[in-house]
Amino acid sequence: MDDPATLSGEAAARRQLDRVGAFSDGVFAVAITLLVLNIEVPRVSGDDLGSALDDLIPDIQAYFIAFAVIGLFWFGHHVAWSRFKATTRRLVWANLLLLSLIALMPFSTALIGKFDDEPIAITLFAVNVGLAAVADSFLDRIAYREGLIEDLEPREIRAQVIGGMIRPAIFFLSIPLAWVSVTAAQLLWLGLFATPAISRRIAGRY
Amino acid sequence: MDDPATLSGEAAARRQLDRVGAFSDGVFAVAITLLVLNIEVPRVSGDDLGSALDDLIPDIQAYFIAFAVIGLFWFGHHVAWSRFKATTRRLVWANLLLLSLIALMPFSTALIGKFDDEPIAITLFAVNVGLAAVADSFLDRIAYREGLIEDLEPREIRAQVIGGMIRPAIFFLSIPLAWVSVTAAQLLWLGLFATPAISRRIAGRY
Amino acid sequence: MDDPATLSGEAAARRQLDRVGAFSDGVFAVAITLLVLNIEVPRVSGDDLGSALDDLIPDIQAYFIAFAVIGLFWFGHHVAWSRFKATTRRLVWANLLLLSLIALMPFSTALIGKFDDEPIAITLFAVNVGLAAVADSFLDRIAYREGLIEDLEPREIRAQVIGGMIRPAIFFLSIPLAWVSVTAAQLLWLGLFATPAISRRIAGRY
Amino acid sequence: MDDPATLSGEAAARRQLDRVGAFSDGVFAVAITLLVLNIEVPRVSGDDLGSALDDLIPDIQAYFIAFAVIGLFWFGHHVAWSRFKATTRRLVWANLLLLSLIALMPFSTALIGKFDDEPIAITLFAVNVGLAAVADSFLDRIAYREGLIEDLEPREIRAQVIGGMIRPAIFFLSIPLAWVSVTAAQLLWLGLFATPAISRRIAGRY
Repeated sequence: MDDPATLSGEAAARRQLDRVGAFSDGVFAVAITLLVLNIEVPRVSGDDLGSALDDLIPDIQAYFIAFAVIGLFWFGHHVAWSRFKATTRRLVWANLLLLSLIALMPFSTALIGKFDDEPIAITLFAVNVGLAAVADSFLDRIAYREGLIEDLEPREIRAQVIGGMIRPAIFFLSIPLAWVSVTAAQLLWLGLFATPAISRRIAGRY
Repeated sequence: MDDPATLSGEAAARRQLDRVGAFSDGVFAVAITLLVLNIEVPRVSGDDLGSALDDLIPDIQAYFIAFAVIGLFWFGHHVAWSRFKATTRRLVWANLLLLSLIALMPFSTALIGKFDDEPIAITLFAVNVGLAAVADSFLDRIAYREGLIEDLEPREIRAQVIGGMIRPAIFFLSIPLAWVSVTAAQLLWLGLFATPAISRRIAGRY
Repeated sequence: MDDPATLSGEAAARRQLDRVGAFSDGVFAVAITLLVLNIEVPRVSGDDLGSALDDLIPDIQAYFIAFAVIGLFWFGHHVAWSRFKATTRRLVWANLLLLSLIALMPFSTALIGKFDDEPIAITLFAVNVGLAAVADSFLDRIAYREGLIEDLEPREIRAQVIGGMIRPAIFFLSIPLAWVSVTAAQLLWLGLFATPAISRRIAGRY
Repeated sequence: MDDPATLSGEAAARRQLDRVGAFSDGVFAVAITLLVLNIEVPRVSGDDLGSALDDLIPDIQAYFIAFAVIGLFWFGHHVAWSRFKATTRRLVWANLLLLSLIALMPFSTALIGKFDDEPIAITLFAVNVGLAAVADSFLDRIAYREGLIEDLEPREIRAQVIGGMIRPAIFFLSIPLAWVSVTAAQLLWLGLFATPAISRRIAGRY
């Protein structure tokens, strides 16, 4: 529990960066794989298996939604990380904050699987993912301010900033919507997949 | 959540490729190790332990079947990945699709362990593995089309294409068979181990 | 299960060091992500979900406390490891001892989540973390004595030794405090975050 | 799922070797960390927590035994792997066999934790570890025969062969002993820690 600032040399910086990246990958990989534990094998007789499996459909749906969400966060993290030159204490802590919200997703996914028509379950999932999106854009901002990013064009920075606002907005806006229609809220989340294209489009205009 | 296409340089490409490979390894490693959670310690008194352990035999059998299946997929993935020069957004997403089907296997393995003589359990396991085999051959095709593969001979490409058709076929054919004989369906899966040799044999003929 | 001492060459030493680091990262990453399994989805009807979620607040609190604690240990480990030149049999075993105490934390975290006002639960968590802090400072001492550390200034060594005494002290002192006030004990743990700054301050005086 | 033999070049061989090592580390790390799930938080009222925790002592004991056992296997694996020059299809499969037995240990550890005075539980744990030790020495032999090991002196090879016989012997001999005394069988396992020193001593004599 020492100060990385005392370390010198580019190779050492790269080594540390790689290890933080590898640890993050580990957390992403474990969290995404733990999602499967939410789909519980029915404890029924063989005759009732067919109908018991029908009851698992919301859990399986939630599994794929959360797999895509964690996958998207992982993908963004891996691209961002490949551009960093070094890591600082602050970046490491912001990264841990992000990871704590990612690692919580197996729980909030279980909620939307078991209570698929309860607005409160949708709300908690949306709060979890929304906060993770905020932490993610926070991470980008720290890296940018501390001069850790290589070769970033102004247009790309704008795209990042815009994406960092759209993503949390999608999830926080889905919360009031969930109390009107649970399905509409979940459909809104699909906007996450369109965010990179939209952010680049908007960023390109200026 | 940015665009990797904007990154330049072979070293950066290699770094990204390695990190996608490492993340995939993480998911494979966690999924293969979670299989053990399906073998539950009996909650009986010490006197009844012997007979309670007998009831675990189908679970243990399912454990080794699934370990071999995930191991085969991992092995194929690790060989394929070692040949790629770079990664693209499309490849990463196809890879996530494959991983989502791999990470689902602890669940479908639990099904064939708990309901070892129910055709519907065999069916769901076969659907899961069959779809993963399709995703796997899809991944190979994307890598080939996007020019990401180094030094691949025509014979090897043919072997890959043929293997990519045999593997899903084995699992999808086992589904109707399961409704005749559950054991026959499971024996058919053993064909998976012969697939590399058969694919190379057929590919060599032309 | 051979003797690493027989290996020669700096590259081989670096390889082994990296692999021990990667294995440690794996254990840290899995342990920190398993914490989420302590937050169980309530098995109630949709109408009672709201109040059932209230009961999960201590579990969620414990999740974030333990995430920060394991995160701190991981961070210290990753910085320390980046300074080592090689690994010895003794270092590897001291590292395994530390990891066995880290990997135990999902259990002791579950205790403080489920029994948040029981001094005995607080005691067990504090014993677990306190022993891990002892193992951690033990690891630093072994590395120092066996000459495995690169470029360490006397001031840094003093800061390490002081930090290695403050951290266990915080957790062992919180034990008697827990029997007076459970909340006070948990607040004392926050001192962990101030330890690096305090250790450097004290070390700088001499 | 292709043939690694078609890959050429030392760098490619090293890459594949590293990835097999990383995957193995992942399985070791997940298996060793899953051990904690066997220690279940008691579902009792706060007043009964003290006595309920007493009942967990066998589970905690089993946790540390298995952590040391898996740690020893991991350590041997990591040293062996650092000496390999390349990997072959056969080595990869022998490695998967070993990993399937390592990943099974959280289950057999749960058995000796829950049924700590039942010879049958001790037997199953000993069979699991004994078979893993056989697979481990099998792996060494394959690597040696296929010429994959760098710079191994005759004395070291003898030490490996001897160690590869002592380790399984310890566990298989503990099985009949368990039916006389469960404690004696567990004490015999401690011989595992003395095996490296004994093997080297015997190997040095000739």
